[in-house]
Amino acid sequence: MNFSSKLLEQAVEEFGKLPGVGKKTALRLVLHLLKQSDADVSRFTQSLDRLKSDIKYCKTCFNIADLEVCEICSSPKRDHSLICVVEDTRDVMAIENTNQFNGVYHVLGGLISPMEGVGPADLKIEGLIERLRNTEVKEVILALSATMEGDTTIFYLYRKLREFQVQISTIARGISFGGELEYVDEITLGRSIATRVPYERNVG
Amino acid sequence: MNFSSKLLEQAVEEFGKLPGVGKKTALRLVLHLLKQSDADVSRFTQSLDRLKSDIKYCKTCFNIADLEVCEICSSPKRDHSLICVVEDTRDVMAIENTNQFNGVYHVLGGLISPMEGVGPADLKIEGLIERLRNTEVKEVILALSATMEGDTTIFYLYRKLREFQVQISTIARGISFGGELEYVDEITLGRSIATRVPYERNVG
Repeated sequence: MNFSSKLLEQAVEEFGKLPGVGKKTALRLVLHLLKQSDADVSRFTQSLDRLKSDIKYCKTCFNIADLEVCEICSSPKRDHSLICVVEDTRDVMAIENTNQFNGVYHVLGGLISPMEGVGPADLKIEGLIERLRNTEVKEVILALSATMEGDTTIFYLYRKLREFQVQISTIARGISFGGELEYVDEITLGRSIATRVPYERNVG
Repeated sequence: MNFSSKLLEQAVEEFGKLPGVGKKTALRLVLHLLKQSDADVSRFTQSLDRLKSDIKYCKTCFNIADLEVCEICSSPKRDHSLICVVEDTRDVMAIENTNQFNGVYHVLGGLISPMEGVGPADLKIEGLIERLRNTEVKEVILALSATMEGDTTIFYLYRKLREFQVQISTIARGISFGGELEYVDEITLGRSIATRVPYERNVG
């Protein structure tokens, strides 16, 4: 692209580094911001600067938080003996939206992925083990994605955690609600037949 | 969405105001930036702040520029008697990329759109008329989109400009190169038959 301005080119280049944003989209976004008022643009950049400088991670569960300990970890209404292990804060939000979980979380900050150079030491696994040592935990739910990285991380965590007196479970895998059998992929369908559950449990 | 942090929520809200960026995409972009180094994030926000505070518009053609007069308008190699009128800087870049145009530009900064409340006074039309009055211009090419707003603007400009001794032309409309007849929409096909050109002109 032939930019008529170096400043424009730099801003487009920075936007183009965002995931899923190509050069053309970046230019569209930058020109949109350029049309906004000075106040709007500085609100945009300040929200990012402040997020980056002031953001904290809960020192118990490592979720993004405004305080030292997040709202969930400091709530007496939650069941602190039930820890749900997730990849990142988006998963916490997704599970909170279901209103089906009353325990606490542990945010790993990623999944083990040799391809991307992410090893166990890059994740908050030590912090999880600390929690199992120091507090009374009955069950750890491994709520990780049904991908190769998720499965690898589940396997690693299972081997690390089994020395503790704690129930280790994974979230159920199978056919989505509303899913029609003929459109389900073979692996999911095959596994959901192999891991079938008694009818009483499904309606329970 | 239940955000675990007000700072995160504010940043996601700001990103969600960008065109074509929904809440989920905004969250993904913000979490991506949060994982980058402090230097990377401040480079991102500074590029925007600097763009917004230091950007200039060429006082001749109103294109985005770093100087008072843009490179194209100050170039002695360009034909200053040939003005191509476009909507915004993206169109300048697109036409420059074709290497088919050696004249200068005039950037309107939008198109007349009653639906979006954009009238002729919001565009740089006075500046164009000034140029026709003060410099010797032979031809004005109206290179605007083939949309209702584009056509409205072309019609308005045509009526404004015809009092000057200047050739007014629009860019050719018809079937794209590589376009197969059966897939062309009826309006384009119908108009391209009605406005057919002698064979010698097409190969010229």
